[in-house]
Amino acid sequence: MSEARDILITEVALRDGSHAINHQFTVQQVIDVARALDEANVPFIEVSHGDGLAGSSLQYGLSRTNEMELIEAAVSVCKQAAVGVLLLPGIGTIKDLNEAAKLGVGMARIATHVTEADISAQHISRAKELGLVTVGFLMMSHMAAPDKLVEQAKLMESYGADVVYVVDSAGALLPDQVSERIRALKQSLEIPIGFHAHNNLSLAMANTLVAIQEGATRIDGSVRCLGAGAGNTQTEVLIAVLDRLGIQTGVDLYKMMDLAEEIVAPILHVPQEITRDSLVLGYAGVYSSFRLHAERAAKKFGIDSRDILIELGRRKAVGGQEDMIVDVAAEIAKKNTSVGSR
Amino acid sequence: MSEARDILITEVALRDGSHAINHQFTVQQVIDVARALDEANVPFIEVSHGDGLAGSSLQYGLSRTNEMELIEAAVSVCKQAAVGVLLLPGIGTIKDLNEAAKLGVGMARIATHVTEADISAQHISRAKELGLVTVGFLMMSHMAAPDKLVEQAKLMESYGADVVYVVDSAGALLPDQVSERIRALKQSLEIPIGFHAHNNLSLAMANTLVAIQEGATRIDGSVRCLGAGAGNTQTEVLIAVLDRLGIQTGVDLYKMMDLAEEIVAPILHVPQEITRDSLVLGYAGVYSSFRLHAERAAKKFGIDSRDILIELGRRKAVGGQEDMIVDVAAEIAKKNTSVGSR
Repeated sequence: MSEARDILITEVALRDGSHAINHQFTVQQVIDVARALDEANVPFIEVSHGDGLAGSSLQYGLSRTNEMELIEAAVSVCKQAAVGVLLLPGIGTIKDLNEAAKLGVGMARIATHVTEADISAQHISRAKELGLVTVGFLMMSHMAAPDKLVEQAKLMESYGADVVYVVDSAGALLPDQVSERIRALKQSLEIPIGFHAHNNLSLAMANTLVAIQEGATRIDGSVRCLGAGAGNTQTEVLIAVLDRLGIQTGVDLYKMMDLAEEIVAPILHVPQEITRDSLVLGYAGVYSSFRLHAERAAKKFGIDSRDILIELGRRKAVGGQEDMIVDVAAEIAKKNTSVGSR
Repeated sequence: MSEARDILITEVALRDGSHAINHQFTVQQVIDVARALDEANVPFIEVSHGDGLAGSSLQYGLSRTNEMELIEAAVSVCKQAAVGVLLLPGIGTIKDLNEAAKLGVGMARIATHVTEADISAQHISRAKELGLVTVGFLMMSHMAAPDKLVEQAKLMESYGADVVYVVDSAGALLPDQVSERIRALKQSLEIPIGFHAHNNLSLAMANTLVAIQEGATRIDGSVRCLGAGAGNTQTEVLIAVLDRLGIQTGVDLYKMMDLAEEIVAPILHVPQEITRDSLVLGYAGVYSSFRLHAERAAKKFGIDSRDILIELGRRKAVGGQEDMIVDVAAEIAKKNTSVGSR
């Protein structure tokens, strides 16, 4: 394909989509999907456990297949696409990154909480040494104001990142919030800006278009919406919409539609919808790992788990602060008693 | 509920959603859904065959239950909500409207193709005589430029409509196209403007927010996305997003979430997704009734049915022009032969 691409798409169904099928991808499925994505001319294909390299664990969910086998399988069928991996420092290590690089991956995305970019220095630097396209991935970006986000993104840029992404992990950002974040980064960074959406508030497409309008040129999509929560921006739909808008992705629309319908849909145990659970996460703007804790606390105190999650969102609780959940539940129960039940 | 509502929601799962379950609603299902919607303080609940009053037919799909029974059931459980009906002149008649009014409905929506508002005069006038909230519903609004849309909407206003809706039947409108249409109507009409979205391009929420921004105050939603094609703007998600934006609907978010999860989801045979078929309709901007004809013609000429649908969209083919499909298919086949296969 000789056309210039205005936007570079990264397909995340084989990484974020791992959440949607409880990390049960087989080698054959990865081969089928990666080959079709490559034939449709998608430039980047991410393959990893949903929580990145070495995510397979009791805590994050055990993978059916060793992810290095899946990565190797994807690399083996890609003629033009670069296979990428996600790495969250603290879960994955430099050793995992080295191993993936040996298998022939072409991109590494180093992901941290939006206020913790400083823990990515070593990993970004190593990815660059390995000759990989290196992406800084700022998760839960709704939790930081634009100036904080700029500060953190500049750190990643200073470590050598080729691209920095605004990642709406909870699907909590509203279009104007995406707009101000991407605009702030565009004004302050030299490197390209990316955007990764979740559809928990049915805003993945809206937010992606706003991000592009503000100058983001690296965009994530997941075919058939295969991702955590309500999934990501649905890639084949995004290709169609961008085509209608005259924005070139270089990706073949019909091939993407056929892949979605004939290869990916049959993999899904349950089609992706916006369920009550994913909606609550987007509305509250909290980690999905809080949900079960909140439900347990809600039961104990006889209150609604949604009230807990919304209050945790207000307090900008982050991973590791699960202890806060019981305190919040107790406070809500006390307040309910004093004002009568809702 | 004493709060003022900035936006009046019409819930269409019991009308547009009829398409999603092949018009198989039972009286009990309608009672359960309508009661929960009423308790959640939704102001308008539309109940009819997917193609409006008297839509039950071999051509449009036979209803399992006589829709007058369903309407009566919904009316019987609503304490604050008005039950509405949809009527497409040519399918439904004044007689059907009179019958629905006798059952206690409070709203009638008279729907025509976007360029055929003149056939709604008599029905709008009769709905007004019956004391109903009367809505003009301009379907396939993507097919008319804003000035044409204004002309047609003004006709409906002149017949006595209390509200006129921009209806994106094919889910084909892009946000800027919604914006220019709603803005043009706001500038030219005295009456409130409504917007009805479909999610075929994953833009239902984006387009709905744009419509509200431009001044639309009557908005359609379908709980759990239950509607034709990829469904409509998902009501419970819309309530959450508008709440985050500080826009009052007066609708109880938790009750809507619970209704979606516990009552509506179990009714669906297949969860609503953006499938290849619905995506093609949105991308091409054509009637869903063209799809089967196009597939037949594609098979005959050995071409891709999507090429036919996209060309029909370019030519703005309308219902009744199914003959054009074979001509278009023949032209595409001829062109493919002369330039080599794609």
